[in-house]
Amino acid sequence: MTQHAIQDTYPDEIAVCYGCGRHNPQGLHIKTYWDGKEGVFHFQPEPYHTAFPGVVYGGLIASLIDCHSIGTAVAAAYQAEGREPGTTPEITYVTGNLNVAYLNPTPIGVELVLKSQVKEMGRRKTIVTCTIYANDTECARGEVTAIRVSSRFGFGQPNN
Amino acid sequence: MTQHAIQDTYPDEIAVCYGCGRHNPQGLHIKTYWDGKEGVFHFQPEPYHTAFPGVVYGGLIASLIDCHSIGTAVAAAYQAEGREPGTTPEITYVTGNLNVAYLNPTPIGVELVLKSQVKEMGRRKTIVTCTIYANDTECARGEVTAIRVSSRFGFGQPNN
Repeated sequence: MTQHAIQDTYPDEIAVCYGCGRHNPQGLHIKTYWDGKEGVFHFQPEPYHTAFPGVVYGGLIASLIDCHSIGTAVAAAYQAEGREPGTTPEITYVTGNLNVAYLNPTPIGVELVLKSQVKEMGRRKTIVTCTIYANDTECARGEVTAIRVSSRFGFGQPNN
Repeated sequence: MTQHAIQDTYPDEIAVCYGCGRHNPQGLHIKTYWDGKEGVFHFQPEPYHTAFPGVVYGGLIASLIDCHSIGTAVAAAYQAEGREPGTTPEITYVTGNLNVAYLNPTPIGVELVLKSQVKEMGRRKTIVTCTIYANDTECARGEVTAIRVSSRFGFGQPNN
Protein backbone atom coordinates (compact mmCIF):
# COMPACT_ATOMS: atom_id res chain seq x y z
CA MET A 1 0.00 0.00 0.00
CA THR A 2 1.38 3.41 -0.93
CA GLN A 3 1.71 5.98 1.82
CA HIS A 4 0.22 8.75 -0.30
CA ALA A 5 -3.07 8.81 -2.10
CA ILE A 6 -2.73 9.29 -5.86
CA GLN A 7 -4.84 12.46 -5.55
CA ASP A 8 -2.11 13.96 -3.32
CA THR A 9 0.21 13.88 -6.34
CA TYR A 10 -2.13 15.83 -8.65
CA PRO A 11 -0.79 19.30 -9.52
CA ASP A 12 -1.98 22.04 -7.17
CA GLU A 13 -3.67 24.04 -9.92
CA ILE A 14 -6.09 21.25 -10.88
CA ALA A 15 -6.59 19.74 -7.41
CA VAL A 16 -9.92 21.53 -7.02
CA CYS A 17 -12.29 18.68 -7.91
CA TYR A 18 -15.42 18.52 -5.73
CA GLY A 19 -14.89 14.78 -5.50
CA CYS A 20 -11.18 14.43 -4.91
CA GLY A 21 -9.45 17.82 -4.89
CA ARG A 22 -7.42 18.57 -1.78
CA HIS A 23 -7.91 22.26 -2.54
CA ASN A 24 -11.73 22.13 -2.59
CA PRO A 25 -12.81 22.94 0.99
CA GLN A 26 -16.44 21.93 0.31
CA GLY A 27 -15.47 18.70 -1.46
CA LEU A 28 -15.53 15.02 -0.56
CA HIS A 29 -11.72 14.52 -0.49
CA ILE A 30 -11.83 11.08 -2.08
CA LYS A 31 -8.39 9.43 -1.86
CA THR A 32 -7.18 6.34 -3.69
CA TYR A 33 -4.48 4.20 -2.07
CA TRP A 34 -3.08 1.91 -4.75
CA ASP A 35 -1.01 -1.13 -3.79
CA GLY A 36 -0.09 -2.18 -7.31
CA LYS A 37 -3.15 -4.36 -7.79
CA GLU A 38 -6.05 -2.73 -5.99
CA GLY A 39 -7.18 0.77 -5.06
CA VAL A 40 -8.69 1.21 -1.61
CA PHE A 41 -10.60 4.09 -0.07
CA HIS A 42 -12.50 4.39 3.21
CA PHE A 43 -15.24 6.99 3.48
CA GLN A 44 -17.66 8.01 6.20
CA PRO A 45 -20.75 9.71 4.70
CA GLU A 46 -22.17 12.70 6.56
CA PRO A 47 -25.65 12.40 8.08
CA TYR A 48 -26.99 14.72 5.35
CA HIS A 49 -25.75 12.36 2.59
CA THR A 50 -29.01 10.50 2.89
CA ALA A 51 -31.45 9.21 0.28
CA PHE A 52 -34.32 7.95 2.40
CA PRO A 53 -33.87 7.87 6.15
CA GLY A 54 -31.12 5.37 6.98
CA VAL A 55 -29.83 4.91 3.42
CA VAL A 56 -26.88 6.60 1.65
CA TYR A 57 -27.69 8.79 -1.35
CA GLY A 58 -27.03 7.06 -4.69
CA GLY A 59 -25.50 10.18 -6.23
CA LEU A 60 -22.85 10.19 -3.50
CA ILE A 61 -22.12 6.54 -4.26
CA ALA A 62 -21.73 7.41 -7.95
CA SER A 63 -19.39 10.28 -7.02
CA LEU A 64 -17.20 8.05 -4.83
CA ILE A 65 -16.95 5.45 -7.59
CA ASP A 66 -16.16 8.09 -10.21
CA CYS A 67 -13.17 9.76 -8.53
CA HIS A 68 -11.82 6.57 -6.96
CA SER A 69 -11.89 4.84 -10.34
CA ILE A 70 -10.19 7.74 -12.12
CA GLY A 71 -7.57 7.77 -9.36
CA THR A 72 -7.08 4.04 -9.93
CA ALA A 73 -6.59 4.55 -13.67
CA VAL A 74 -4.01 7.27 -13.02
CA ALA A 75 -2.10 5.20 -10.44
CA ALA A 76 -2.09 2.11 -12.67
CA ALA A 77 -0.86 4.12 -15.65
CA TYR A 78 2.13 5.51 -13.73
CA GLN A 79 2.89 1.96 -12.63
CA ALA A 80 2.61 0.62 -16.21
CA GLU A 81 5.10 3.26 -17.35
CA GLY A 82 7.45 2.51 -14.46
CA ARG A 83 7.17 6.07 -13.16
CA GLU A 84 6.58 7.63 -9.78
CA PRO A 85 3.09 9.16 -9.47
CA GLY A 86 3.19 12.91 -9.94
CA THR A 87 6.28 12.96 -12.15
CA THR A 88 6.01 14.92 -15.37
CA PRO A 89 4.53 14.73 -17.88
CA GLU A 90 1.39 14.39 -15.77
CA ILE A 91 -0.79 11.36 -16.51
CA THR A 92 -4.43 12.35 -16.46
CA TYR A 93 -7.82 10.85 -17.26
CA VAL A 94 -11.39 12.06 -17.51
CA THR A 95 -14.58 10.03 -17.15
CA GLY A 96 -16.05 8.85 -20.44
CA ASN A 97 -18.70 6.57 -18.97
CA LEU A 98 -19.89 5.76 -15.46
CA ASN A 99 -22.11 2.82 -14.64
CA VAL A 100 -23.37 2.00 -11.16
CA ALA A 101 -25.45 -1.02 -10.17
CA TYR A 102 -27.11 -0.50 -6.79
CA LEU A 103 -27.21 -4.00 -5.30
CA ASN A 104 -28.27 -3.37 -1.73
CA PRO A 105 -29.33 -0.31 0.25
CA THR A 106 -26.18 1.29 1.69
CA PRO A 107 -26.69 1.96 5.40
CA ILE A 108 -25.81 5.43 6.63
CA GLY A 109 -23.64 5.82 9.73
CA VAL A 110 -21.26 3.07 8.61
CA GLU A 111 -17.78 3.52 7.15
CA LEU A 112 -17.82 2.56 3.48
CA VAL A 113 -14.95 0.69 1.85
CA LEU A 114 -14.26 1.05 -1.88
CA LYS A 115 -12.08 -1.45 -3.71
CA SER A 116 -11.12 -0.97 -7.34
CA GLN A 117 -9.29 -2.93 -10.02
CA VAL A 118 -8.19 -2.31 -13.57
CA LYS A 119 -10.22 -4.45 -15.93
CA GLU A 120 -8.64 -3.29 -19.19
CA MET A 121 -5.89 -0.82 -19.97
CA GLY A 122 -5.44 0.56 -23.46
CA ARG A 123 -3.37 3.40 -24.82
CA ARG A 124 -6.22 5.87 -24.55
CA LYS A 125 -8.90 4.08 -22.54
CA THR A 126 -8.81 2.27 -19.21
CA ILE A 127 -11.76 0.42 -17.71
CA VAL A 128 -11.89 0.31 -13.92
CA THR A 129 -14.29 -1.68 -11.78
CA CYS A 130 -15.11 -0.61 -8.25
CA THR A 131 -17.15 -2.15 -5.45
CA ILE A 132 -18.53 -0.41 -2.36
CA TYR A 133 -18.89 -2.39 0.83
CA ALA A 134 -20.65 -1.53 4.08
CA ASN A 135 -20.19 -3.97 6.95
CA ASP A 136 -18.73 -6.43 4.40
CA THR A 137 -21.93 -6.34 2.33
CA GLU A 138 -21.51 -5.46 -1.34
CA CYS A 139 -23.79 -2.43 -1.74
CA ALA A 140 -22.89 -1.11 -5.19
CA ARG A 141 -20.73 -2.08 -8.11
CA GLY A 142 -19.38 0.45 -10.59
CA GLU A 143 -17.56 0.49 -13.87
CA VAL A 144 -15.80 3.57 -15.18
CA THR A 145 -14.37 4.13 -18.63
CA ALA A 146 -11.46 6.49 -18.06
CA ILE A 147 -10.22 8.43 -21.08
CA ARG A 148 -6.63 9.61 -21.14
CA VAL A 149 -6.23 13.27 -22.06
CA SER A 150 -3.08 15.23 -22.56
CA SER A 151 -3.81 17.67 -19.78
CA ARG A 152 -6.52 18.77 -17.40
CA PHE A 153 -5.47 22.35 -17.89
CA GLY A 154 -7.67 23.74 -20.61
CA PHE A 155 -9.61 20.48 -20.86
CA GLY A 156 -12.37 20.88 -23.37
CA GLN A 157 -10.19 22.85 -25.74
CA PRO A 158 -9.40 21.35 -29.15
CA ASN A 159 -6.69 18.66 -29.14
CA ASN A 160 -7.53 17.52 -25.64
CA MET B 1 -46.10 21.76 -17.63
CA THR B 2 -47.20 21.05 -14.07
CA GLN B 3 -46.98 23.87 -11.57
CA HIS B 4 -45.45 21.70 -8.88
CA ALA B 5 -42.36 19.57 -9.08
CA ILE B 6 -43.03 15.89 -8.44
CA GLN B 7 -40.59 16.04 -5.50
CA ASP B 8 -42.88 18.59 -3.81
CA THR B 9 -45.50 15.84 -3.56
CA TYR B 10 -43.22 13.35 -1.76
CA PRO B 11 -44.27 12.72 1.85
CA ASP B 12 -42.58 14.99 4.37
CA GLU B 13 -40.97 12.13 6.29
CA ILE B 14 -38.97 10.86 3.34
CA ALA B 15 -38.28 14.21 1.63
CA VAL B 16 -34.75 14.30 3.06
CA CYS B 17 -32.80 13.10 0.02
CA TYR B 18 -29.50 14.94 -0.54
CA GLY B 19 -30.38 15.11 -4.22
CA CYS B 20 -34.04 16.09 -4.21
CA GLY B 21 -35.38 16.37 -0.67
CA ARG B 22 -37.00 19.70 0.16
CA HIS B 23 -36.20 18.99 3.83
CA ASN B 24 -32.45 18.55 3.30
CA PRO B 25 -30.93 22.00 3.87
CA GLN B 26 -27.51 20.91 2.53
CA GLY B 27 -28.99 19.17 -0.52
CA LEU B 28 -29.22 19.96 -4.21
CA HIS B 29 -33.03 20.41 -4.33
CA ILE B 30 -33.45 18.74 -7.71
CA LYS B 31 -36.99 19.26 -9.00
CA THR B 32 -38.71 17.50 -11.89
CA TYR B 33 -41.43 19.32 -13.79
CA TRP B 34 -43.33 16.74 -15.84
CA ASP B 35 -45.58 17.84 -18.70
CA GLY B 36 -46.97 14.40 -19.51
CA LYS B 37 -44.22 13.54 -21.97
CA GLU B 38 -41.02 15.08 -20.71
CA GLY B 39 -39.44 15.99 -17.39
CA VAL B 40 -37.54 19.27 -17.23
CA PHE B 41 -35.20 20.68 -14.61
CA HIS B 42 -32.95 23.73 -14.62
CA PHE B 43 -29.94 23.79 -12.33
CA GLN B 44 -27.16 26.26 -11.66
CA PRO B 45 -24.08 24.51 -10.23
CA GLU B 46 -22.19 26.27 -7.47
CA PRO B 47 -18.61 27.42 -8.17
CA TYR B 48 -17.32 24.63 -5.90
CA HIS B 49 -19.07 21.95 -8.02
CA THR B 50 -16.01 21.85 -10.22
CA ALA B 51 -14.00 18.97 -11.65
CA PHE B 52 -11.09 20.75 -13.27
CA PRO B 53 -11.14 24.52 -13.46
CA GLY B 54 -14.06 25.56 -15.68
CA VAL B 55 -15.74 22.15 -15.88
CA VAL B 56 -18.66 20.76 -13.83
CA TYR B 57 -17.93 17.73 -11.62
CA GLY B 58 -19.11 14.44 -13.14
CA GLY B 59 -20.44 13.16 -9.83
CA LEU B 60 -22.78 16.14 -9.66
CA ILE B 61 -23.97 15.37 -13.18
CA ALA B 62 -24.64 11.76 -12.14
CA SER B 63 -26.56 13.01 -9.08
CA LEU B 64 -28.74 15.34 -11.16
CA ILE B 65 -29.54 12.56 -13.62
CA ASP B 66 -30.30 10.12 -10.81
CA CYS B 67 -32.91 12.15 -8.92
CA HIS B 68 -34.42 13.76 -12.00
CA SER B 69 -34.89 10.35 -13.61
CA ILE B 70 -36.44 8.84 -10.49
CA GLY B 71 -38.76 11.85 -10.31
CA THR B 72 -39.68 11.25 -13.93
CA ALA B 73 -40.49 7.59 -13.24
CA VAL B 74 -42.70 8.58 -10.30
CA ALA B 75 -44.54 11.28 -12.26
CA ALA B 76 -45.09 8.99 -15.25
CA ALA B 77 -46.42 6.20 -13.03
CA TYR B 78 -49.04 8.47 -11.41
CA GLN B 79 -50.03 9.55 -14.90
CA ALA B 80 -50.26 5.93 -16.13
CA GLU B 81 -52.57 5.13 -13.21
CA GLY B 82 -54.66 8.24 -13.82
CA ARG B 83 -53.90 9.59 -10.37
CA GLU B 84 -52.81 12.93 -9.00
CA PRO B 85 -49.17 12.89 -7.83
CA GLY B 86 -48.91 12.54 -4.08
CA THR B 87 -52.20 10.67 -3.64
CA THR B 88 -52.05 7.50 -1.61
CA PRO B 89 -50.87 4.84 -1.85
CA GLU B 90 -47.57 6.59 -2.59
CA ILE B 91 -45.80 5.55 -5.78
CA THR B 92 -42.11 5.24 -5.18
CA TYR B 93 -38.99 4.06 -6.97
CA VAL B 94 -35.35 3.47 -6.12
CA THR B 95 -32.38 3.44 -8.46
CA GLY B 96 -31.38 -0.02 -9.68
CA ASN B 97 -28.84 1.11 -12.25
CA LEU B 98 -27.40 4.45 -13.32
CA ASN B 99 -25.41 4.96 -16.50
CA VAL B 100 -23.91 8.26 -17.57
CA ALA B 101 -22.07 8.94 -20.82
CA TYR B 102 -20.03 12.15 -20.60
CA LEU B 103 -20.14 13.51 -24.12
CA ASN B 104 -18.66 16.98 -23.77
CA PRO B 105 -17.10 18.92 -20.89
CA THR B 106 -19.90 20.72 -19.03
CA PRO B 107 -18.95 24.36 -18.57
CA ILE B 108 -19.33 25.77 -15.07
CA GLY B 109 -21.13 29.09 -14.59
CA VAL B 110 -23.88 28.15 -17.04
CA GLU B 111 -27.42 27.07 -16.18
CA LEU B 112 -27.85 23.40 -17.01
CA VAL B 113 -31.06 22.04 -18.50
CA LEU B 114 -32.08 18.41 -17.94
CA LYS B 115 -34.68 16.75 -20.13
CA SER B 116 -35.95 13.25 -19.43
CA GLN B 117 -38.23 10.74 -21.10
CA VAL B 118 -39.62 7.34 -20.21
CA LYS B 119 -38.07 4.71 -22.48
CA GLU B 120 -39.85 1.67 -21.03
CA MET B 121 -42.39 1.25 -18.26
CA GLY B 122 -43.06 -2.13 -16.74
CA ARG B 123 -44.93 -3.20 -13.66
CA ARG B 124 -41.83 -3.16 -11.49
CA LYS B 125 -39.16 -1.49 -13.62
CA THR B 126 -39.10 1.79 -15.53
CA ILE B 127 -36.22 2.92 -17.72
CA VAL B 128 -35.73 6.67 -17.98
CA THR B 129 -33.34 8.49 -20.29
CA CYS B 130 -32.05 11.94 -19.44
CA THR B 131 -29.91 14.46 -21.29
CA ILE B 132 -28.06 17.45 -19.80
CA TYR B 133 -27.58 20.53 -21.93
CA ALA B 134 -25.42 23.60 -21.38
CA ASN B 135 -25.83 26.43 -23.86
CA ASP B 136 -27.79 23.98 -26.06
CA THR B 137 -24.83 21.59 -26.22
CA GLU B 138 -25.52 18.02 -25.16
CA CYS B 139 -23.01 17.46 -22.37
CA ALA B 140 -24.10 14.16 -20.83
CA ARG B 141 -26.64 11.45 -21.47
CA GLY B 142 -27.95 9.20 -18.73
CA GLU B 143 -30.10 6.13 -18.38
CA VAL B 144 -31.64 5.09 -15.09
CA THR B 145 -33.35 1.83 -14.26
CA ALA B 146 -35.92 2.77 -11.64
CA ILE B 147 -37.24 -0.07 -9.47
CA ARG B 148 -40.68 0.29 -7.93
CA VAL B 149 -40.80 -0.48 -4.23
CA SER B 150 -43.78 -0.61 -1.95
CA SER B 151 -42.51 2.15 0.30
CA ARG B 152 -39.47 4.25 1.02
CA PHE B 153 -40.19 3.96 4.71
CA GLY B 154 -38.13 1.04 5.94
CA PHE B 155 -36.58 0.55 2.51
CA GLY B 156 -34.07 -2.25 2.69
CA GLN B 157 -36.29 -4.37 4.87
CA PRO B 158 -37.53 -7.71 3.48
CA ASN B 159 -40.43 -7.47 1.01
CA ASN B 160 -39.38 -4.05 -0.24
